[in-house]
Amino acid sequence: MLVVGTVAFDTLHIAGRTYSRILGGSATYASIAGAHFTQAQIVAVVGRDFPAGAATMLRERAIDLSGLEIRSDGETFHWEGQYTDDFSSRTTLRTDLNVIDGFKPKIPATYRQTPYILLSNIDPEQQVEVLDQLERPKLVVADTMNHWISNKLVELRKLLTRVGLLMVNDEEARQLSEEQNLIKAAYILQRLGPTTVIIKKGEHGLLGLTGDELFSVPALPVIDVADPTGAGDTFAGAMVGYLARSNEIGGSALRKAVAYGTVLASFCVEGIGVVRLSTVTLPEIRDRFQQLSKLVHFPVEPDIG
Amino acid sequence: MLVVGTVAFDTLHIAGRTYSRILGGSATYASIAGAHFTQAQIVAVVGRDFPAGAATMLRERAIDLSGLEIRSDGETFHWEGQYTDDFSSRTTLRTDLNVIDGFKPKIPATYRQTPYILLSNIDPEQQVEVLDQLERPKLVVADTMNHWISNKLVELRKLLTRVGLLMVNDEEARQLSEEQNLIKAAYILQRLGPTTVIIKKGEHGLLGLTGDELFSVPALPVIDVADPTGAGDTFAGAMVGYLARSNEIGGSALRKAVAYGTVLASFCVEGIGVVRLSTVTLPEIRDRFQQLSKLVHFPVEPDIG
Repeated sequence: MLVVGTVAFDTLHIAGRTYSRILGGSATYASIAGAHFTQAQIVAVVGRDFPAGAATMLRERAIDLSGLEIRSDGETFHWEGQYTDDFSSRTTLRTDLNVIDGFKPKIPATYRQTPYILLSNIDPEQQVEVLDQLERPKLVVADTMNHWISNKLVELRKLLTRVGLLMVNDEEARQLSEEQNLIKAAYILQRLGPTTVIIKKGEHGLLGLTGDELFSVPALPVIDVADPTGAGDTFAGAMVGYLARSNEIGGSALRKAVAYGTVLASFCVEGIGVVRLSTVTLPEIRDRFQQLSKLVHFPVEPDIG
Repeated sequence: MLVVGTVAFDTLHIAGRTYSRILGGSATYASIAGAHFTQAQIVAVVGRDFPAGAATMLRERAIDLSGLEIRSDGETFHWEGQYTDDFSSRTTLRTDLNVIDGFKPKIPATYRQTPYILLSNIDPEQQVEVLDQLERPKLVVADTMNHWISNKLVELRKLLTRVGLLMVNDEEARQLSEEQNLIKAAYILQRLGPTTVIIKKGEHGLLGLTGDELFSVPALPVIDVADPTGAGDTFAGAMVGYLARSNEIGGSALRKAVAYGTVLASFCVEGIGVVRLSTVTLPEIRDRFQQLSKLVHFPVEPDIG
């Protein structure tokens, strides 16, 4: 799988504590999650301040960094944010774009035939430029955000005609579809191009539509959330990683992929930054997959009438 | 099953239309829903204005009205409310308690050994008085609301020591437990007495805790909501009805009961008042049960590592 997105430093203010310039970014979370399932490749840019230790940590997870551009003339993208105590919302305190300002993603020749593509939330023009460099990908998954819906709607709609799976959160789904009802919104978004639409609802899990089938997965009940940063990217990375591993894009593989995405996201939020996500083991993933299965299970046959 | 609650007239303002004095009330919704599964008995009070046609409609569904007190010296409880266009909230415009003011529920002798009891949202003192008249019920299910949590907390906590299954919505769960995290809230509420706690989250479905097992059920995706009134009571009535039919209170019967509750609630909101709920057929219920099963289904065995 190929992940295009950001590798960043995050400064997080959580419950009275500050975590300064820890490793973050959409491509970081997504590739670490995806690498539990398949080989992951990154396309992103960092600056001269990017520590060798971080690159080593990613490489040790068998993440291919040949598409990670290291620019000696700038600093790594930095985001600073503060969460409310109940994690219901967060405020951006500072955004230093640094080297991602004007970044033109270049896909290494060795990546161009990678079949499973995750376009994390970046400018839709850049997302289209990535697709233009690829040779017949099997599945293109795209994330986006309110900023692009407000400011680059034409480009975003052009992108969506080339996307197989769109992931948005509930607010973005409503904004992009101009429809309040999320089910109707999913059908409207599907008509823009993607066969599959996944609407993330945070602690309430997700609503999915693939072809004419709806599906729903709850979030796993995490009692002690440490840091919600990156949960959505982790979900996406694990989902695409599992699909790549299965080499299927629909049916029961999609259902399982979404379940694994949910499982990895639940680990992600238990630690600060990528700490928990990067140390979780396959037996732990399997256990929690079964926990999710029990959480939603009920006997399938109706027995009345 | 025995349902203790209200039989009422509702005046509803929905999407620019007004529905005046239609049949409503918690015991009405719950008994119609429960009667799809088992014989239902009602304990409630109405006034001299209660139409014979409404009583006939309930009796035709095999609902036993011998506990329905008809007072000739007053009018039936009347509630008037207005929904916002997206149904995200409602405002009470008027509440005429009428005959339910000071109502003392009297359980007919023929009801005292009924094993499955649903105490809809009424004053917890009245709920306790009902329990005092019953002979060893097998399962007591209770609903409550913020008003009683604020004003009758001592009585409510006394009630909870005698309840097997508590149903509250997310706000009520947070208020009663004094805990924001709903999972922690469920465990706190369980310590007040009930083995099973169900936290209703409206369009996001529900979170349940029974013994040490958590479960989660999404709402069925209803594209065109006509009227959300009574959905919670319908859920409760169908759930208790199914448990009574199975004569079990936990395990897979509870999971299925919650699924049937979800199914009946989805029909309820498709019509104004009880119109859809009272005409739904068993084949329709079975179909939608399978739809719910498909919605949450994913293969149960993890296949990585």
